Amino acid sequence: MSISTLCNKEVICVEMGTSVEQVGKMMEEKNIGCVIVIDNEKPCGLVTDRDILIRVINKGLSPKDTYVDDIMSELVMTLDEDMGLHDALEMVKGMSLRRFPVTDKNGNLTGIVTLDDIIYLLGKEMYNVASIIKSESATL
Amino acid sequence: MSISTLCNKEVICVEMGTSVEQVGKMMEEKNIGCVIVIDNEKPCGLVTDRDILIRVINKGLSPKDTYVDDIMSELVMTLDEDMGLHDALEMVKGMSLRRFPVTDKNGNLTGIVTLDDIIYLLGKEMYNVASIIKSESATL
Amino acid sequence: MSISTLCNKEVICVEMGTSVEQVGKMMEEKNIGCVIVIDNEKPCGLVTDRDILIRVINKGLSPKDTYVDDIMSELVMTLDEDMGLHDALEMVKGMSLRRFPVTDKNGNLTGIVTLDDIIYLLGKEMYNVASIIKSESATL
Amino acid sequence: MSISTLCNKEVICVEMGTSVEQVGKMMEEKNIGCVIVIDNEKPCGLVTDRDILIRVINKGLSPKDTYVDDIMSELVMTLDEDMGLHDALEMVKGMSLRRFPVTDKNGNLTGIVTLDDIIYLLGKEMYNVASIIKSESATL
Repeated sequence: MSISTLCNKEVICVEMGTSVEQVGKMMEEKNIGCVIVIDNEKPCGLVTDRDILIRVINKGLSPKDTYVDDIMSELVMTLDEDMGLHDALEMVKGMSLRRFPVTDKNGNLTGIVTLDDIIYLLGKEMYNVASIIKSESATL
Repeated sequence: MSISTLCNKEVICVEMGTSVEQVGKMMEEKNIGCVIVIDNEKPCGLVTDRDILIRVINKGLSPKDTYVDDIMSELVMTLDEDMGLHDALEMVKGMSLRRFPVTDKNGNLTGIVTLDDIIYLLGKEMYNVASIIKSESATL
Repeated sequence: MSISTLCNKEVICVEMGTSVEQVGKMMEEKNIGCVIVIDNEKPCGLVTDRDILIRVINKGLSPKDTYVDDIMSELVMTLDEDMGLHDALEMVKGMSLRRFPVTDKNGNLTGIVTLDDIIYLLGKEMYNVASIIKSESATL
Repeated sequence: MSISTLCNKEVICVEMGTSVEQVGKMMEEKNIGCVIVIDNEKPCGLVTDRDILIRVINKGLSPKDTYVDDIMSELVMTLDEDMGLHDALEMVKGMSLRRFPVTDKNGNLTGIVTLDDIIYLLGKEMYNVASIIKSESATL
């Protein structure tokens, strides 16, 4: 299974220069905790709901006059959409990150994968394999 | 294994009447995404970093003049600390919640359990059992 | 969840003095790979289909004139039926065994648990928890 | 991860015409529960320790004068070594089988994969991902 099949393709993107106020409302409407920031059609950063709390509110800044450019985390890693799940896991290990943008060969964003998506997939497969083992004759 | 062994005992509590500004800073310092609200020594609500975004910032309210009382989610369920993991899982199924306060027999808060804690424990046990099966003779 | 709930209660037992020929046929009819040997109403040993191959056939012995007493593995460990799954896992770790007889307080056999049963249960729970996480709002 | 990386390459093969007596001893020496039967350099069947019990001993046949040809299970499915784990799982679902021979493009045997191998791999990955989630900041 490639990352392309696994990833969530309805990722929400915003342009550089978008205000934090707008992003906060978008996160509420779309029921998401994270947006990807785009610069010249390429993903360049990521902003989470928690970033808004820590980097804007706790600093006493105004969400209206603060922009994603100022608070985004730079993308340290994107996953290639043709990569297999297991190769992706090798890359992801050792990074304290929970979400990974997925790009095509030209570096254009095609989706996002979270560790929760991966846990779900592994859990489903584990259950499938365990069910086969259980149903197989003479396991007792 | 009882929930008591599994749960995180360093849960951060705040009294009713605490301002959202204070809670936001506490979440940053303690590196947590959630606090439990206490009323008369009993847990009565829960506030997450996301709640601050949705229920305060997006509504244009001031974190300084808004209080946990106004934005907390009421506790729909607490887990008993003597409960086993599997009974707890039965209770937790069907609820769209990720964090569960844990209480003793008198209803006093003793910790908090997240679905992530449970995933970690199940993953660890799965790996242990799979390792025994792999090492056992003549599995091929 | 106690081991009592998890274990397979239709375990097949044979008395000391039963011939290997009889046991082999029982394993075929009941579609099982293992029987428990009983002495004075207490479980004392275990015979698997593989034991019959290694300890009877490969030695050129006759299944008709060989008895479970001669080829059984002594029980190194039984699990108490009131034990929780997680305590049972602690005991089971480090043993290269796949099947564990379950007894009540008086040492009477009440069932059998295999590592495959445990894998199945853990896989099912993992899948349940992962499904809750996936359905929970704003995980992206 | 391809099936090629996952599979056990030290699979034991026997030619058509090998006696069950020889196979039984081989299973003991090599500590395996299954051999693959080869015809003209291609895998054509599979014999397990349990097959010897059910199809030879229980029928009163002599292991010396019975041959793998008479008791083997025909191969219903082989996995291609270039196949990914997840595609392999799709193929494997719904079959009540525990072991799958792996072949290269020319149909030559290169290894064998068991459901236990797959459980082990999934368990290891689950544990890895759960560990990342646990270590990640602010999950509480």
